[in-house]
Amino acid sequence: MSTLIKDVDVDGRATHLYIEGNRIAEIGKRREADTVLDGRGKIALPGFVNLHTHAAMTLFRGYADDLDLSTWLEARIWPAEAKLSPEDVYWGTKLACLEMIKSGTTTFNDMYFHMDEAAKAVKDMGLRAFLSEGIVDLNDPGRAAKQFRAAEETNRKIERLKTDRIRPAFGPHAIYTVSKDSLLRIRELADKEESLVHIHLSETKREVDECLAKTGMRPAKYLESIGFLGDDVIAAHGCWLDPSEIEVLARAGAKVAHCPISNMKLSAGAAMPYRALREAGVVMGLGTDGAASNNSLDMFETMKVAALLQKFAHGDPKTLPAMEAFELATRGGARALGIDAGTIRVGNLADLILVDPRRPELTPRHNDVSNWVYSAHGGVVDTTICDGVVLMRDGHVKGETDILERAGDAARDLVRRA
Amino acid sequence: MSTLIKDVDVDGRATHLYIEGNRIAEIGKRREADTVLDGRGKIALPGFVNLHTHAAMTLFRGYADDLDLSTWLEARIWPAEAKLSPEDVYWGTKLACLEMIKSGTTTFNDMYFHMDEAAKAVKDMGLRAFLSEGIVDLNDPGRAAKQFRAAEETNRKIERLKTDRIRPAFGPHAIYTVSKDSLLRIRELADKEESLVHIHLSETKREVDECLAKTGMRPAKYLESIGFLGDDVIAAHGCWLDPSEIEVLARAGAKVAHCPISNMKLSAGAAMPYRALREAGVVMGLGTDGAASNNSLDMFETMKVAALLQKFAHGDPKTLPAMEAFELATRGGARALGIDAGTIRVGNLADLILVDPRRPELTPRHNDVSNWVYSAHGGVVDTTICDGVVLMRDGHVKGETDILERAGDAARDLVRRA
Repeated sequence: MSTLIKDVDVDGRATHLYIEGNRIAEIGKRREADTVLDGRGKIALPGFVNLHTHAAMTLFRGYADDLDLSTWLEARIWPAEAKLSPEDVYWGTKLACLEMIKSGTTTFNDMYFHMDEAAKAVKDMGLRAFLSEGIVDLNDPGRAAKQFRAAEETNRKIERLKTDRIRPAFGPHAIYTVSKDSLLRIRELADKEESLVHIHLSETKREVDECLAKTGMRPAKYLESIGFLGDDVIAAHGCWLDPSEIEVLARAGAKVAHCPISNMKLSAGAAMPYRALREAGVVMGLGTDGAASNNSLDMFETMKVAALLQKFAHGDPKTLPAMEAFELATRGGARALGIDAGTIRVGNLADLILVDPRRPELTPRHNDVSNWVYSAHGGVVDTTICDGVVLMRDGHVKGETDILERAGDAARDLVRRA
Repeated sequence: MSTLIKDVDVDGRATHLYIEGNRIAEIGKRREADTVLDGRGKIALPGFVNLHTHAAMTLFRGYADDLDLSTWLEARIWPAEAKLSPEDVYWGTKLACLEMIKSGTTTFNDMYFHMDEAAKAVKDMGLRAFLSEGIVDLNDPGRAAKQFRAAEETNRKIERLKTDRIRPAFGPHAIYTVSKDSLLRIRELADKEESLVHIHLSETKREVDECLAKTGMRPAKYLESIGFLGDDVIAAHGCWLDPSEIEVLARAGAKVAHCPISNMKLSAGAAMPYRALREAGVVMGLGTDGAASNNSLDMFETMKVAALLQKFAHGDPKTLPAMEAFELATRGGARALGIDAGTIRVGNLADLILVDPRRPELTPRHNDVSNWVYSAHGGVVDTTICDGVVLMRDGHVKGETDILERAGDAARDLVRRA
């Protein structure tokens, strides 16, 4: 299968972009292709990589806002999640995929429950995803055993889908919800299976304080001390990382997903120390977090708020300039996940979007990257291609109306049961 | 002239909304009308009020980002502004109006130069606006005299346009750029003309420190001490207001425009003290600020970032909940400007928008207001009506392509000359 995007703007020049199978095969020559897209007036950009989300939480969008963290989690989200059926996760993930396709995301790193159902949804929708069944053992060995069985079973089911687009990962929720034994078991499994590990780290001050009280160490140091850290670890949030922990993460090659909107909405109390992490050479990307704590999955918006928050927190408007925000959202996320994506380059995966700049908020064009970061939103995306397949064309995605209806119904039913 | 929007959702029920002239005349009955819009599946909301912007600065969108405030202003913006022609302001304001119409804003409070040209653009585009010629005398009486002549001449030209939609106001830039004598003269003129006064106040710590050093008073206190404050004053920013100043503003009945995105992008260093202002009963609204420091004029985005910043700054996710953010952006701004708008109510000005909620980011509908604030962007607006006139229908605005082209050309030329 081949696709030609003709007369499209790549890095500031009008050219032709030729896709063969799931890779960008050539940039420059006009070639025959099975599918030809007219790129005139449009700009090709790499698809975004959402480095931390809980996709099916779209079902809880707007269900529990403006609450303190413990009420939000304990009185609203957990009771509702306890009623989540596998089918709910299927429809919630499908809704998330639809929103991501429409706003230009081609890859996401997801942690939630019933992830075999999430995998089916991702397979149907055509995105690329790393899926981890969330492990929360609350220091109960019986519960841990059950969760490991579930996670391993889920990962086997995902493997059986036989698509390179979807890879299972391990998802220990956080150091305060997962025992040391389970963390070590996950380290072993991840080494054996060569899977990524997706964990929440240093999101709140309470997490840090409790870890200090219990272990005498801060969270990242604790994870290093037990031999858990590695270059396969994607740590979400990192709001409260101190310089010693940044050194630890850099040494281990662990990656960090910055989730500025969620951190602000839930008042995490500190902003991820972007500059220090960058200086230490830690690979970073951006995440929207789940729709219960954002509430949108629009990576354009997340780029902007990341830049705003970092400028505000550092007291310096030169911090996290537009180009760096754009790179975090594309190349940074791709490097963190170890995929050949995040830039438009021959040989890379054909994960890309076309944007139409003929809009008031993208006029004038003094600086396109600035426009993407500070002025665009997901609605500027015209075409989304993932793994060489056109998932959206002229703003239309197949089956959209049906997904909105089914996911809307599932969400209503779910909170009624909760 | 009359318009009926039939079968539209108003406050959660399907009904008919009847507009006669420039007012909402009836809600409930299906009536004959000159124009009939099909509102099925759509939701009517009040149009947004952008309480602080510099509309024509759309020409500088993306021209000078990620710089420290003094480089931004002194090396980039001021030299370019020195080359601004009246025609530039016309096209820059037209572009801003187009962006506002498309993203659901129906009224804006603007301060800039060549405002008679801005007024022509606003008249052509159909929005409601308060326009003030920016006064910057830098303590030079000669310069002050010239600026007053220009401002009074501009305001007379605006009056001659003979439209209630556009009202001249006075725009002393700030206490550090306008002398005490000029501030007092503006107070007199505003009293005489019954015009609003639009000023930047307490945006940076430097402004506060310099005012303290010079007068022994903080900025709001200084303005009170010279008899400048009144209930006709719209003070933009207010990041560094302290409790004594909040008391002063509340006593005077002055209004405050919160501009969270600009404050974060330029690292103002503090967030407007929303809770204390609210407790003191100060009327507040939201502003995007100009496109050189935001860079979009999308009030949906500004509602979200206002809620995010206030939660983050107060360390409490219950601060500035969705409903309050929505009210700031609509009713708050309308009260600040003294117009009968900001709510959908019989007798109010027919300044309203229709939103189509059948979109992934607005699904499910657990809480519509939460969806508008935390998940929507300007692209959700389907129809915009201002002063009873339909300015956008099905996302289309008359003359759009021409405005993009002309404004784009003007912006390119302008920075080439700078």
